[in-house]
Amino acid sequence: MVTDEQRLACAYLLKVAEPPAYALRRFVAEHGLIAAAEAVRAGEVPDAVSLETSARRHIDTAAEDLAAGERAGARLVTPEDEDWPAWPLLPLTNAAARGLKWASAPLGLWVRGSVPLDEALQRAVSVVGARAATSYGEHVAAEMGYGLASRGMSVVSGAAYGIDGAAHKGALNANGCTIAVLACGIDKAYPAGHSLLIDRIAAQGLVITEYPPGTPPGRHRFLVRNRIIAALGIGTVVVEAGQRSGARNTAASAAALGRVLMVVPGPVTSAMSMGCHDLLRDGLATSVSSVAEVIESVGLFGEDLVTRTGSTARPTDGLDSESLRVHEALELRATHSAERIAEVSGVPLPRVRAVLPALELTGLADRCESGWRRASVEV
Amino acid sequence: MVTDEQRLACAYLLKVAEPPAYALRRFVAEHGLIAAAEAVRAGEVPDAVSLETSARRHIDTAAEDLAAGERAGARLVTPEDEDWPAWPLLPLTNAAARGLKWASAPLGLWVRGSVPLDEALQRAVSVVGARAATSYGEHVAAEMGYGLASRGMSVVSGAAYGIDGAAHKGALNANGCTIAVLACGIDKAYPAGHSLLIDRIAAQGLVITEYPPGTPPGRHRFLVRNRIIAALGIGTVVVEAGQRSGARNTAASAAALGRVLMVVPGPVTSAMSMGCHDLLRDGLATSVSSVAEVIESVGLFGEDLVTRTGSTARPTDGLDSESLRVHEALELRATHSAERIAEVSGVPLPRVRAVLPALELTGLADRCESGWRRASVEV
Repeated sequence: MVTDEQRLACAYLLKVAEPPAYALRRFVAEHGLIAAAEAVRAGEVPDAVSLETSARRHIDTAAEDLAAGERAGARLVTPEDEDWPAWPLLPLTNAAARGLKWASAPLGLWVRGSVPLDEALQRAVSVVGARAATSYGEHVAAEMGYGLASRGMSVVSGAAYGIDGAAHKGALNANGCTIAVLACGIDKAYPAGHSLLIDRIAAQGLVITEYPPGTPPGRHRFLVRNRIIAALGIGTVVVEAGQRSGARNTAASAAALGRVLMVVPGPVTSAMSMGCHDLLRDGLATSVSSVAEVIESVGLFGEDLVTRTGSTARPTDGLDSESLRVHEALELRATHSAERIAEVSGVPLPRVRAVLPALELTGLADRCESGWRRASVEV
Repeated sequence: MVTDEQRLACAYLLKVAEPPAYALRRFVAEHGLIAAAEAVRAGEVPDAVSLETSARRHIDTAAEDLAAGERAGARLVTPEDEDWPAWPLLPLTNAAARGLKWASAPLGLWVRGSVPLDEALQRAVSVVGARAATSYGEHVAAEMGYGLASRGMSVVSGAAYGIDGAAHKGALNANGCTIAVLACGIDKAYPAGHSLLIDRIAAQGLVITEYPPGTPPGRHRFLVRNRIIAALGIGTVVVEAGQRSGARNTAASAAALGRVLMVVPGPVTSAMSMGCHDLLRDGLATSVSSVAEVIESVGLFGEDLVTRTGSTARPTDGLDSESLRVHEALELRATHSAERIAEVSGVPLPRVRAVLPALELTGLADRCESGWRRASVEV
């Protein structure tokens, strides 16, 4: 059980430090939420922590923030809570331990929605991409969202216009779980045009953020937020991305975190696929053309290995090159002697004499009084 | 100088043995054209050579074939000729020496067109793909053909409908050199609907084949022909390919020959791009989205390395994350004190006091009597 005091300490620290708060996160891991919050409030912290907290440490609105969260239908999940997604966030913790400061795990998460956070994140794939997506990209993102959700995966994205929105909607249409990670407070809807969509996500899946209620979105917050999207999916699929795109930042984060990075190819004539093709060309990402390939790439279900369908089989498919040459020397409307077939095909006469009866057995050649003919039963 | 006798021997052997004639090719390399032809004619050859030549060795139409070639405007180029493309064909010779029998180099080549064969093949790229191409694929193939030819590369392909034809036409439109490798006699046009195109290719570039005049195309001949297309290009670009496609055979050959294999991505909703995406996903091919990327991949011109353009730069691009946070805390229509900016941005006050004048210097912030404001000169 998490005490009120712990939750207030968590809310206070989330308000005071602008994420990713690398030094503070380590300080909290060492001293616990309550002692860390007290030390920050008193200004009795190491220099690195002070740098992250001195500007706002006098602002203690923890109680108000918890009340505002509640009014917005949200709860604050702390690392001490049972449904804290420690496992999905582990790549962030590990990367930060390796010195990647941008990769610090969040100090806590504001959560709207009734699904337990850790359950929702047990099998998750992130689907991201350009806001200025094409109809092709939105179509593929919606299909990905729908297909992943239908197979019991959660779809993580950023609630933005374009690819993000299409992926969320696809998952919602499959009655699946989808998770929007915001770059602003849980009581804000950004972009405003997606406020209804965000409400639907909260009703059926989860809306989460590390930013306290009231926080406006900001460009650096989108970049900081992207690390969480990149971490929460076992893999990240980039559906469309221009050569300069926030989705490429998420992609780079996913790769740095050791997550599976996938891209959807598109027309080379489309600027919105350039970022995807660059990632492919640079060998940083795997190409995925279907939901089945995504699932195969993230390796969640062994039984879901993609079986490529190939098109219709031809009756001559199993033939070795010699038999194929003999078969091609046969005609539908004329019969030929084995000697003539040897000449036309270039296959030695004894071999022709051996191959022809075999072709007859498999229904590919007919033996007539005047010689051999191609059978007409082909596909 | 090649003697008439040598040329007749070469024509005889090309008629007698169905390519790829692995054992015969080795036999000729050992004994020379004339002695090899005499031995084949007399039936005094090792078993392996006999297997390749016994069915037709009695057919000696070498003189007639040379006359038929001449009537079709073609000459026979033998390995003894000065313009024999020994260097471009080397991957075949090497692969055959490693035991890959399908990869035997041709015994000779029938050639229509006035460009010296070796010159035309000095800098060549093969462009292949599906016959049932989409308009997207044909557009890209034509652009590739045009762009490669404009940069002085020869474009090798198979004269088929769809991608092949589009690539040839693109090169012709750039007044460049393009080479069609046929799977039938030099006096035949296949497909018939491309007979005018093949004439144009012969007039401006080259049409070549190892099959003697009069030989009809056959399914196995297309597969055998593909090894020559795969060898002659320093790299092979697959523009579109279904999951089951002759182009994938050419692609596999190119990879086996150690040539650079490239594919053009396309919409994942298009069946005609599936073969390309499979090659990418399997790590067998490099993704290419432009002529510049093809040239970079084949490594012909060091100075042609692709410079990715990226889109318009933003004035805030160079900022570190701290300065970005301070900049975002500024407003266009209101001024704030440094203290307030420290709170909003979470950046410590002393750092805010250092960053603001720097932002002012670069034109991103304005200092007013009542505090600091975001400058309005942004892009």
